[in-house]
Amino acid sequence: MRAALMYGAGDLRVEDVPDARLVEPTDAVIRIKRACICGSDLWPYNLMKPGDGPRPMGHESIGVVEEIGRDVRTLKRGDVVIMPFAFSDGTCAFCHEGLHTSCLHGGFFGNSEVGGAQAEALRVPQADGTLFPITTTADEALLASLLTLSDVMGTGHHAAVVARVARGKAAAVIGDGAVGLCGVIAAKRLGAEQIIIMGRHADRIALAKSFGATDVVSERGEAAAERVRELTGGMGVHSVLECVGTEASIETALGIVRDGGAVGRVGVPHYEGIPSAKPMFYSNITVGGGPAPVRGYIDELLPDILEGRIQPGRVFDSITDIEGVPAGYKAMNDRKAIKVMVTP
Amino acid sequence: MRAALMYGAGDLRVEDVPDARLVEPTDAVIRIKRACICGSDLWPYNLMKPGDGPRPMGHESIGVVEEIGRDVRTLKRGDVVIMPFAFSDGTCAFCHEGLHTSCLHGGFFGNSEVGGAQAEALRVPQADGTLFPITTTADEALLASLLTLSDVMGTGHHAAVVARVARGKAAAVIGDGAVGLCGVIAAKRLGAEQIIIMGRHADRIALAKSFGATDVVSERGEAAAERVRELTGGMGVHSVLECVGTEASIETALGIVRDGGAVGRVGVPHYEGIPSAKPMFYSNITVGGGPAPVRGYIDELLPDILEGRIQPGRVFDSITDIEGVPAGYKAMNDRKAIKVMVTP
Repeated sequence: MRAALMYGAGDLRVEDVPDARLVEPTDAVIRIKRACICGSDLWPYNLMKPGDGPRPMGHESIGVVEEIGRDVRTLKRGDVVIMPFAFSDGTCAFCHEGLHTSCLHGGFFGNSEVGGAQAEALRVPQADGTLFPITTTADEALLASLLTLSDVMGTGHHAAVVARVARGKAAAVIGDGAVGLCGVIAAKRLGAEQIIIMGRHADRIALAKSFGATDVVSERGEAAAERVRELTGGMGVHSVLECVGTEASIETALGIVRDGGAVGRVGVPHYEGIPSAKPMFYSNITVGGGPAPVRGYIDELLPDILEGRIQPGRVFDSITDIEGVPAGYKAMNDRKAIKVMVTP
Repeated sequence: MRAALMYGAGDLRVEDVPDARLVEPTDAVIRIKRACICGSDLWPYNLMKPGDGPRPMGHESIGVVEEIGRDVRTLKRGDVVIMPFAFSDGTCAFCHEGLHTSCLHGGFFGNSEVGGAQAEALRVPQADGTLFPITTTADEALLASLLTLSDVMGTGHHAAVVARVARGKAAAVIGDGAVGLCGVIAAKRLGAEQIIIMGRHADRIALAKSFGATDVVSERGEAAAERVRELTGGMGVHSVLECVGTEASIETALGIVRDGGAVGRVGVPHYEGIPSAKPMFYSNITVGGGPAPVRGYIDELLPDILEGRIQPGRVFDSITDIEGVPAGYKAMNDRKAIKVMVTP
């Protein structure tokens, strides 16, 4: 089958690899119907050392169940499923707490052990716990929105939940990538009165506004923090959704959060320590977040998508077949595409 | 009047100073009935540079209102009051949110601007918002417990709230000082099933057990983390009450918290950054806390004290008049006293 492999920074290739197959009796194999390229895929696209590859890429998809292991109970061939970016058994203590990303028998897609979703097919461990069956749809826009439950919409929602977005509060979203844009949707959905999008790409800002952003801050660093304080009566925002993951972005987050407020981190951190431990203490600021337990959020978010109240699929502004995946990475990395859908 | 002044590390003197007096129309002057020495007072006692003094010390007290400014509305001479360690107007946005330590017109006691409570009398800014009137009591044990609402009991409670202690959960308390001991009371009160006290002083550990600690860990560093994991089925605790403030203690906190858990910091941080930003992310750990808005917690905690359900006053194991304050600092610093009460 064809699959995307990262060989090193800037070196993404689509190659023939052995077909995905069942390994454990709790596995399923899915045929990938829709996949996509994630902002987090750009980290290795920019930083990966040649010796660390090749690495199968992709951790978001909607698929069709093709084979199931003998212990799989809730799925059958032909089921259409949402595949969260982490697999989980659905039965351990953490899954029961809704923290599927810490599942005792779980793990992540997009590595040499499990394989990636930017491929024609994929082995899914812990299939019963992981895959979320949906009704087949021929509506492309709806399919796109359902695909975001695999990662970006659930991740934006996680940032908003951890940042304690609530009715009438002020929120800021750092980053205008697909996750940040979904963060705007999530903040709006949870009732934020003021939603400040922090970014500088016209197409993304326009989308953020249509998703509910009330203010735009395109400055960076201390100028950005000053601007947010101006927009919030000098106080800062109750909630910061940190959707980037750089040292500069976490510094900005801590610079714009109001006393007693919270920062929800969902940008994969590329820094070692959280700065400003003292000012953060004196202002009673909370920092949390991590990989979003998107499997646990599907139940809550799905009705809003099915009934058209939110349309996160609009973050996809480009589509390609599997052979076009390398060009898709380049387009996203050059900020020429917001998020690229893949139809293997 | 007599007052305690810090001149530099190890150099605490009791001296004659000008009498406390009204400055603003919203001030009150209180005669100090009971004060005490705080674990946080030991930071300057160990680290203060000679040039930074003299600094009036003390931020906890029960007092009797002696004078009120012309704009004070809710207090009268003779009222017995609990004095929280921070003053606050009780009317700003932050006070309304319960975050009195971020009051727009607030500040802290124990500095040259406002004065300290280890003295015969003290000026209290924003008296209406700050002081909490109580019924006079002749019961010394009850008075001691009421005094802890000024800081340590409210601070232990804050750590527990921020660390999201809840019924049936596992909590660990780092530090066996008065705040840590009050943290044990708070964790028990909020329903924690397992409460691990981390400390190594026999008298304090005994008190922690009588307050509800179920396990004791006296190891330090990685050995302590290993022991906590052993005690929690390998998972770590849901809630960590960090009541010390050193780099080692925050590292331990992050080493023992369960995935999805929370660390409540109330030990004044003597480190610049929160370490382990990446592991903390992948485990979805939250870190929060800061100076406790104890003024806002009095309503909730007071009934439990008045009705004898909690007895935080038992943290006082030593008492002195104002002249004995320097010896009190030494006793606490040498870990010969848990917490010293002062009766000026």
